[in-house]
Amino acid sequence: MIPITDPRIEEYLKGLTTEDDPHLLAMEAMAKELTFPFVDRLVGRLLYILTRIRQPRLVVELGSGFGYSAWWFARAISITGKVVMTDHAPENIDYARRMFQENGLFDRLEFRVGDALEIGPQYRDIDILFIDIDKHQYRQAIETMLPCLAKNALVIADNSLWYGKVAEGEDDPETRGIREFNEFMFSRQDFFPTILPLRDGVMLAYRLG
Amino acid sequence: MIPITDPRIEEYLKGLTTEDDPHLLAMEAMAKELTFPFVDRLVGRLLYILTRIRQPRLVVELGSGFGYSAWWFARAISITGKVVMTDHAPENIDYARRMFQENGLFDRLEFRVGDALEIGPQYRDIDILFIDIDKHQYRQAIETMLPCLAKNALVIADNSLWYGKVAEGEDDPETRGIREFNEFMFSRQDFFPTILPLRDGVMLAYRLG
Repeated sequence: MIPITDPRIEEYLKGLTTEDDPHLLAMEAMAKELTFPFVDRLVGRLLYILTRIRQPRLVVELGSGFGYSAWWFARAISITGKVVMTDHAPENIDYARRMFQENGLFDRLEFRVGDALEIGPQYRDIDILFIDIDKHQYRQAIETMLPCLAKNALVIADNSLWYGKVAEGEDDPETRGIREFNEFMFSRQDFFPTILPLRDGVMLAYRLG
Repeated sequence: MIPITDPRIEEYLKGLTTEDDPHLLAMEAMAKELTFPFVDRLVGRLLYILTRIRQPRLVVELGSGFGYSAWWFARAISITGKVVMTDHAPENIDYARRMFQENGLFDRLEFRVGDALEIGPQYRDIDILFIDIDKHQYRQAIETMLPCLAKNALVIADNSLWYGKVAEGEDDPETRGIREFNEFMFSRQDFFPTILPLRDGVMLAYRLG
């Protein structure tokens, strides 16, 4: 494992941002307590900015957990936009449903329990596709979802550096899954990808046409 | 100085991207030879994606050097968009003018020699403002340019981590300049900023309204 960003830099960056939304803070505390993997506040802020710039009508998340990334998407999307959450754990989706009922963003969400790779393809014209499922499924995910993407869609994939293991030549199924996904995306002519060394690596891939 | 991103990660990321544009490669070789500071390929690819998503009509660069970042903006902007380059060194602007004459993007550029803080405010409705001038001038730059920004403008500031020195409590004029700029941006209600630990730190700040 390679520390992607120097911890002193991470600390400085986190010190700059103050958040006071009680649901956000509750989710962060819960994730920490349960050591539940989630995109952190810095990735969340990036998702917010990208969503504001792109002004999507439809965001689909493959792998939502209890709604941390969805919280950022939902805050940034217009009131006519929709964020589709998917998770295999009903208790995660229940948590998100309650949270979004309380914070007034409920109407911007769709809550789906089940296999993200079965639910995702039920949507069309997806402006932003967020991928955060099991790492060995990433390449299958993008191939399955290709026909569902809008023109000039933005694909955002979390864990694109997988604890730095992709750079170390490790060969467990997760590392291999991420490495193959990265190489697949960079080899395609219809995507323009880049990977940000933010937290565990965030791939942004712009669909050309 | 703190290495912001682990060098093994940087190497992995650079290995994923192949570029073959002769002007791009020539600029990279020249920057390396002259140790001329420039945003690298990874920042360039991010600029490209942000520009494609935002579809700006007007990009203004405060501090363009010989045109490396402008190359990425100009490739991504629509044929009706405009990228304004500013640099105090006529030879840098001359280099850029020749390059853009050769690669067919000339009409998307405006070439201005002089003080970025005098030239910048001559523009209005700027969709993307790119800041890469002397580091002690960043805060002055954003305050000067505020009336010139379009609704929902995106401000992109390079060197927002300044070799990591902002996280170390160093107090030279450049580090102080960047630190004050960061704190200023994060304290404002009319911007939503975040800093990406990419290369030397890239601030993205979305103007709310």
